[in-house]
Amino acid sequence: MSKDLGPESLTEAVIDSFKDTADPRLKAILESLTRNLHNFVRQVSPSISEWEAAINFLTATGRKCDDVRQEFILLSDVLGVSMLVETINDQETPDATDSTVLGPFHMVESPERHLGDNISSESDGDVCVVRGRVLSVTGLPIPNARIDVWQANTTGFYDVQQPGIQSVGNGRGLFRTDENGAFHFRSVVPSFYPIPTDGPVGGLLKASGRHPYRPAHIHFIVTAAGFKELTTHIFIGGSEYIDSDAVFAVKESLIKSFTPNEDPAAAAEFGVDSPFIEGVIDILLHPESQSPSSRFQVSEEVVR
Amino acid sequence: MSKDLGPESLTEAVIDSFKDTADPRLKAILESLTRNLHNFVRQVSPSISEWEAAINFLTATGRKCDDVRQEFILLSDVLGVSMLVETINDQETPDATDSTVLGPFHMVESPERHLGDNISSESDGDVCVVRGRVLSVTGLPIPNARIDVWQANTTGFYDVQQPGIQSVGNGRGLFRTDENGAFHFRSVVPSFYPIPTDGPVGGLLKASGRHPYRPAHIHFIVTAAGFKELTTHIFIGGSEYIDSDAVFAVKESLIKSFTPNEDPAAAAEFGVDSPFIEGVIDILLHPESQSPSSRFQVSEEVVR
Repeated sequence: MSKDLGPESLTEAVIDSFKDTADPRLKAILESLTRNLHNFVRQVSPSISEWEAAINFLTATGRKCDDVRQEFILLSDVLGVSMLVETINDQETPDATDSTVLGPFHMVESPERHLGDNISSESDGDVCVVRGRVLSVTGLPIPNARIDVWQANTTGFYDVQQPGIQSVGNGRGLFRTDENGAFHFRSVVPSFYPIPTDGPVGGLLKASGRHPYRPAHIHFIVTAAGFKELTTHIFIGGSEYIDSDAVFAVKESLIKSFTPNEDPAAAAEFGVDSPFIEGVIDILLHPESQSPSSRFQVSEEVVR
Repeated sequence: MSKDLGPESLTEAVIDSFKDTADPRLKAILESLTRNLHNFVRQVSPSISEWEAAINFLTATGRKCDDVRQEFILLSDVLGVSMLVETINDQETPDATDSTVLGPFHMVESPERHLGDNISSESDGDVCVVRGRVLSVTGLPIPNARIDVWQANTTGFYDVQQPGIQSVGNGRGLFRTDENGAFHFRSVVPSFYPIPTDGPVGGLLKASGRHPYRPAHIHFIVTAAGFKELTTHIFIGGSEYIDSDAVFAVKESLIKSFTPNEDPAAAAEFGVDSPFIEGVIDILLHPESQSPSSRFQVSEEVVR
């Protein structure tokens, strides 16, 4: 390393320091990180106290994290990074159901349940049945696919946010599709809700005049042998904030009507009172690729 | 926000979400951050598991921080960001003594001491006297300037790293220059040392084949009414790692010879045995500017 580096030569010196990185993928990531991070710093020319504020913000974000709170995922979400990563990965499988963000609340294991079980232990709210099929992109049913669902309750909170009010596992369920690739479960229609605002990310949203709300949705992770895992939501059509999701995660294809089903026979089949609210989503999975994707070659632009 | 954003339009949507930020400086920072962060993500196209690894790395970095450990400053240091910020700020005052990084160990208040006091309570190591003057860039002595110094001991550890072995305040001192702007204090010659490697930043260095060492140095923060505060080091000339500082903080002008002084009268004056090691640094401060710097206008490049 030569001494007395200027703002540009310093960047090259840092990149050079990573030259012995054994893993070429990590090396390329560190080079791109250094170049873009230094570019950001040169563009905004932070004062020392602004740099300290940034250090304090990141530290507070990390220290806010615990077993039931993931403030760095929230930060990634509100900066659009989570959705950008999903969108990039989603481009490989345009024929599958769209993916969207994981979010910060997939922190406890969902309880195993049987098809038709009620994932909500709450008595208020609009009873709904969510049903559909898991299919390959060619339309073949996928039996025994694993469906992990989690959602907020009617007041907009996940179980882990309300210890003592909700039991852990409320609003969550692990299901397996039947021999026809079909699934159904009972719940209550979730509410739109604010992401947690009592941490550094909430402070960022407030300082930038942004609302913290997400439109109502139910999370899905769908896994089946031989297929690419899918992380997505089903959004409740007509929900408030459907056009201004705080984490940029809405896709048109994932918005589903939750409409009354007035057929008493259907109510009887699902074991609910008639009429009930029904949401339907078919989930299409892409076959798992056999070879690593070319996308994992860092773009030429990085090594400019 | 429009739905179904692609990788490019998502970036614009996130920037647009910051449009109501009241503070124009914060707004410009958030725009530049979003653009550069998204550019990084698009360049490396992280897989979902790589994104999770990044979230876990940042979370672990935050959770490693406590009252005596600042892992995010370490991360900023090894990525060259701390030095980049210093270098950018330093360009405003080319006639003053060069600045360098704060580092992660300025975490406890230095004890007030009198000129000539010994900041080291340890009996081994090479006794040294550090002396010099604080001057304005025009060469006028600055009396009553506040000098905050801190350093590692002869085994390369700061007080806060060795509770029970070193007392808090060992290797630290707050001094005031005399009527001639002069200062002197006694210590032991510090050792080069590794930055702490038992956290995520240590893992990053290891994975990238980088050594964690910093050349021997003593930290200074110098403050005086009417002058710009200066954060810097004095580096011990000839120290190992002077050409490969793990945090890129060496500047030629800050390397000083620590040489034997064999004059018995000088030893008597400073109250040490003869001969002793002596390091000399004059510190030049720039007058505090009256108006905000033009540098705090974010460069045009940001709003491209």
